[in-house]
Amino acid sequence: MIIVMRPHAAAAEIDAVEALIAKLKLSAHVSRGAERTIVGVIGAPPDKETLLAQFAGLDGVESVVPISRSYKLVSREARGGERSIVRVNDRVSFGGSQIAVAAGPCSVESREQLELTATSVARSGANILRGGAFKPRTSPYAFQGLGEEGLRYMREAADRSDLAVVTEVLDPRDVALVERYADILQIGARNMQNFTLLREVGGVRKPVLLKRGLAATIEEWLMAAEYIVAAGNHDVVLCERGIRSFDPATRNVLDLAAVPVVQGLTHLPVIVDPSHGTGVRALVAPMSLAAVAAGADGLIIEVHPNPAAAFSDGPQSLTLPNFEELMGRLRTVASAIGRSMPQSQTAPV
Amino acid sequence: MIIVMRPHAAAAEIDAVEALIAKLKLSAHVSRGAERTIVGVIGAPPDKETLLAQFAGLDGVESVVPISRSYKLVSREARGGERSIVRVNDRVSFGGSQIAVAAGPCSVESREQLELTATSVARSGANILRGGAFKPRTSPYAFQGLGEEGLRYMREAADRSDLAVVTEVLDPRDVALVERYADILQIGARNMQNFTLLREVGGVRKPVLLKRGLAATIEEWLMAAEYIVAAGNHDVVLCERGIRSFDPATRNVLDLAAVPVVQGLTHLPVIVDPSHGTGVRALVAPMSLAAVAAGADGLIIEVHPNPAAAFSDGPQSLTLPNFEELMGRLRTVASAIGRSMPQSQTAPV
Amino acid sequence: MIIVMRPHAAAAEIDAVEALIAKLKLSAHVSRGAERTIVGVIGAPPDKETLLAQFAGLDGVESVVPISRSYKLVSREARGGERSIVRVNDRVSFGGSQIAVAAGPCSVESREQLELTATSVARSGANILRGGAFKPRTSPYAFQGLGEEGLRYMREAADRSDLAVVTEVLDPRDVALVERYADILQIGARNMQNFTLLREVGGVRKPVLLKRGLAATIEEWLMAAEYIVAAGNHDVVLCERGIRSFDPATRNVLDLAAVPVVQGLTHLPVIVDPSHGTGVRALVAPMSLAAVAAGADGLIIEVHPNPAAAFSDGPQSLTLPNFEELMGRLRTVASAIGRSMPQSQTAPV
Amino acid sequence: MIIVMRPHAAAAEIDAVEALIAKLKLSAHVSRGAERTIVGVIGAPPDKETLLAQFAGLDGVESVVPISRSYKLVSREARGGERSIVRVNDRVSFGGSQIAVAAGPCSVESREQLELTATSVARSGANILRGGAFKPRTSPYAFQGLGEEGLRYMREAADRSDLAVVTEVLDPRDVALVERYADILQIGARNMQNFTLLREVGGVRKPVLLKRGLAATIEEWLMAAEYIVAAGNHDVVLCERGIRSFDPATRNVLDLAAVPVVQGLTHLPVIVDPSHGTGVRALVAPMSLAAVAAGADGLIIEVHPNPAAAFSDGPQSLTLPNFEELMGRLRTVASAIGRSMPQSQTAPV
Repeated sequence: MIIVMRPHAAAAEIDAVEALIAKLKLSAHVSRGAERTIVGVIGAPPDKETLLAQFAGLDGVESVVPISRSYKLVSREARGGERSIVRVNDRVSFGGSQIAVAAGPCSVESREQLELTATSVARSGANILRGGAFKPRTSPYAFQGLGEEGLRYMREAADRSDLAVVTEVLDPRDVALVERYADILQIGARNMQNFTLLREVGGVRKPVLLKRGLAATIEEWLMAAEYIVAAGNHDVVLCERGIRSFDPATRNVLDLAAVPVVQGLTHLPVIVDPSHGTGVRALVAPMSLAAVAAGADGLIIEVHPNPAAAFSDGPQSLTLPNFEELMGRLRTVASAIGRSMPQSQTAPV
Repeated sequence: MIIVMRPHAAAAEIDAVEALIAKLKLSAHVSRGAERTIVGVIGAPPDKETLLAQFAGLDGVESVVPISRSYKLVSREARGGERSIVRVNDRVSFGGSQIAVAAGPCSVESREQLELTATSVARSGANILRGGAFKPRTSPYAFQGLGEEGLRYMREAADRSDLAVVTEVLDPRDVALVERYADILQIGARNMQNFTLLREVGGVRKPVLLKRGLAATIEEWLMAAEYIVAAGNHDVVLCERGIRSFDPATRNVLDLAAVPVVQGLTHLPVIVDPSHGTGVRALVAPMSLAAVAAGADGLIIEVHPNPAAAFSDGPQSLTLPNFEELMGRLRTVASAIGRSMPQSQTAPV
Repeated sequence: MIIVMRPHAAAAEIDAVEALIAKLKLSAHVSRGAERTIVGVIGAPPDKETLLAQFAGLDGVESVVPISRSYKLVSREARGGERSIVRVNDRVSFGGSQIAVAAGPCSVESREQLELTATSVARSGANILRGGAFKPRTSPYAFQGLGEEGLRYMREAADRSDLAVVTEVLDPRDVALVERYADILQIGARNMQNFTLLREVGGVRKPVLLKRGLAATIEEWLMAAEYIVAAGNHDVVLCERGIRSFDPATRNVLDLAAVPVVQGLTHLPVIVDPSHGTGVRALVAPMSLAAVAAGADGLIIEVHPNPAAAFSDGPQSLTLPNFEELMGRLRTVASAIGRSMPQSQTAPV
Repeated sequence: MIIVMRPHAAAAEIDAVEALIAKLKLSAHVSRGAERTIVGVIGAPPDKETLLAQFAGLDGVESVVPISRSYKLVSREARGGERSIVRVNDRVSFGGSQIAVAAGPCSVESREQLELTATSVARSGANILRGGAFKPRTSPYAFQGLGEEGLRYMREAADRSDLAVVTEVLDPRDVALVERYADILQIGARNMQNFTLLREVGGVRKPVLLKRGLAATIEEWLMAAEYIVAAGNHDVVLCERGIRSFDPATRNVLDLAAVPVVQGLTHLPVIVDPSHGTGVRALVAPMSLAAVAAGADGLIIEVHPNPAAAFSDGPQSLTLPNFEELMGRLRTVASAIGRSMPQSQTAPV
């Protein structure tokens, strides 16, 4: 932490800063310039936010600049610069050379929809089935999901096609239920700073997919991951899914640079959601290719057997043939950068 | 809803749109231009979001423009254009000619801090005590609040000074506990779309203060209020607290125009939080005055007996004398626009 | 400037930083912590941006934190903390206790329109006539302004009603022409970083109204003012006119906190444009009142005798009676905060 | 254009809308619903912005929804869905199967710097030399470029290595000068809506590289291109270079989805600037690969023989070996998606 004093701050003001540092048992290096004094603070306070605020509140202090990051357990340094591999089962993991692919509908609508989708995406090479049984909807009047019935449909369809299941949990009281059916618990963008829920999934023994909030900085996103890891669950996968911006041309702005930025800051794997990231079907394929080229460890893509009849997110869902074709193109790009895609479970028809 | 077809869409594509309208038992008005056909859809579908998505997914459709708003119960029209008054008790209400004022620390830290603050802000004319017992902190290592102990301190201090209590609830499992101590339950910005929590406070018989999310549109904010009202609690007060922007000069951009915008769209009262809205002590007074001039129905202000020692948000907290002085200036401006401020409980010293 | 080294940076890397500091004839204070070294740099380099970049490019450097601001001449310190008053003529100035008010149409459309508007707004108490003769339009097919003819209409109408004239200049080659007719030259939001144009108006002996760019930070805005002052023109008035955000509810987000922020950083006066700042007629009055309460030194408001027939910006223009009524309400609020509004030139009818 | 009336608008209000439509010689289709009336307007008004404003200003009108886009000449439809190829010379073009690559320093600093850079990037396979002789700098005290001397250095170095030259022009009075030296004239992000300058380069017979503004919507960007084309210059290349956002983690957010979005809307080619788009050297390579995978028609990359000593943008510049290595990786990805990179001019050493 560096404390920048106002130009010509009084000696007594600087003394007060030094006194607080001493009281907190930290040590100070004071640089007195002709115009301005700067105080570097060395030491590891337990609660950085509070500390910054305390110094910023002193008279004569112009600004307080944090120089160490607030996250510890998820930082690259925590694993000596090594990247983590989050294993789901023996077919699915995130962070290795193989790129994980989750595909499926936005909402679980029926057993038939799930069966049809799971069979097809597995054949195209996806290794995870996605789908929402509890849906966070902007409107209280919109379809809110099938609940446990939806979870059951997902589990059955996934098992038949040897896919893992990822699905969102919204309520801390539902965590145990969702854990029974899912292989990966998803925390949605709107809940990225639902700290209650983060702590709850921190107590689970299954991987968590943590989506970036709509207007979350990368620092805040990593702090949210830190909540989960600090609560005991080390298997966190990050997911960039687009941030809010001023341009109505797309639903969100997909921040692909977040992939290499995050890989420089944390050992956790990071995947991309090009469906929510753009909101437009025609953009899903180019952004999937770009995500892989940028180094993403996986993709999560909305696929629906009949997007025009989807209960939610139809306009951004690929059809089953769209997805099949995209997987072919992804294999070529993955191979060009030295990575691989999951193998199809069955020979394509 | 208006469906705009692509230029020169095929007749079969237009037929498909009309067929879907018929199937949904809505009625259509089709305008065929030289270049482009537009279909107006009349009727009240139960789930607008899903409906928009269904039409947007049809071939030949360029865009779907919703023309009725998604919120019903909170809309101005729902009360025939009348504005609601949310009553807390016989001294405190929101939406009448008197402007409500909540003041107090960011975090409840000790019994003494609360007593000192409550006595002083009541004397200055506040009629509500604010303070956090459950704190949503970006870092898992930051002070998370005193929990029930904090709630008790607030209740005791408020009662002694005849103030109402507003405090945040984070976890749906804590709603009953918080309801026992507080007069007004606050939903914080990060939880504005925590739909689980919204539904839970919808079941409470006390007013809810709903803060706007960091990057929430006004439409999304009103939809969040609709969740609470649709769950049975009609006493919702909205709170503008600043939105996220690109300029690091202030913590947030306080969107004061949201006050008259919201008053045009909903019958619910709307207040302003100039402390989080700016993050800088020196800006709290000018923004409080501006909020009142813009027509806000109340203010919620962070006040701390010793901001430099605050556990959180010290840099944006007013001192007790700062607050006393601000209340005097607010009285003059309120009176200039034909409104009033709460009276001091006791004669100022 | 503070240079933050990466954790465990090599001694040679730190040496390289010190060598560059020495080469640039600046002085260094080095704080070596257990984990990390921080270097404070003292001195006044001629070109800060370049310097920051040079250090940031060295190996082992994690970040470079500027601690002195880049603007000099416009900073509060440059006038010892005193605020400047920019005088236009003996009736009009910015930054004193009287609040300046510019009113008039977005575009100059005809001699009659200007005459009618000028007479009316002068009677209501405006002291400056606004209007565009050169219009920056998003579309090349939109009305681009009447050019010199429009300037002439403005001058004539303003003279008859004893008003000053403010009008926008777009092209460095038009500066001399605009200067002949106008009392105040406006630089529009889209040209805030048109450095060619800034330098050109820096050579003029008349005040410049510098609007904030649509996505300009306050630091960038003050740097743009610094361009004008550095080129010789000290009479710069800043104008907050709304920034771009994610919410389509208003055309822009009016950042009223920018008023006190800017007043803390610079000696220059700052005014507010509630018309472009919101884009909605019904919001102009509440935001004008709020701007005055927040401490703005003036207002610039779009007023049109017949907004429905305006060539541009009709939806955000006040009618003449709207403006008359608003001026009355502004007088009350200005007086409540110890300031005054200009007196009407003639008795109201 | 669709005019949405307020619920229960008066018959006279609807009549006024119809009367204005008739007066403007457009035709109307009126859909009267139980609650609300919607008026579709057919026809091609000369000045859409003005028209929208006129209708929006009428009583009883809730909103006016434009349904045709404002740009004509640059729209995909203008070329019947075909994409344009912008040819610079017989080695360089944009929009064909070969991806164009411009490389070079942010600022031209010396003849030696240019020679060294040009020789090296040509050998690595770039076919255009980039460099700034007129620099738009936030601070008036920062290095502003070498002017004509810089242009001369660029031309000489480019000619020796058989490269085309792209360089920025800031002032309409410099367009003729820059045209003498450059093959492609660049309009920078800050000047995207400098309409004076756009019209000026519209009169030139050389291609224009039009960067997206820092907070420009895609619609505004295409309208800026329309200015150039409407002024007579059809050879416009668009360049995505990052937009402003709330996260300080990167200088800008590179909006790669803009590439396929723009390709769907216009026939013009679109390239990507990963250097300004991220501001961080380590992100340039992954974002270049992602841009090519997303379908970009070219790249413009900052390369400097000694970034630590660069006059500007050092932290985001690649070294010469960085660039050489990146070009190799780009070739593999381009080939994976069926495109090619320019061939090296000389055998690599």
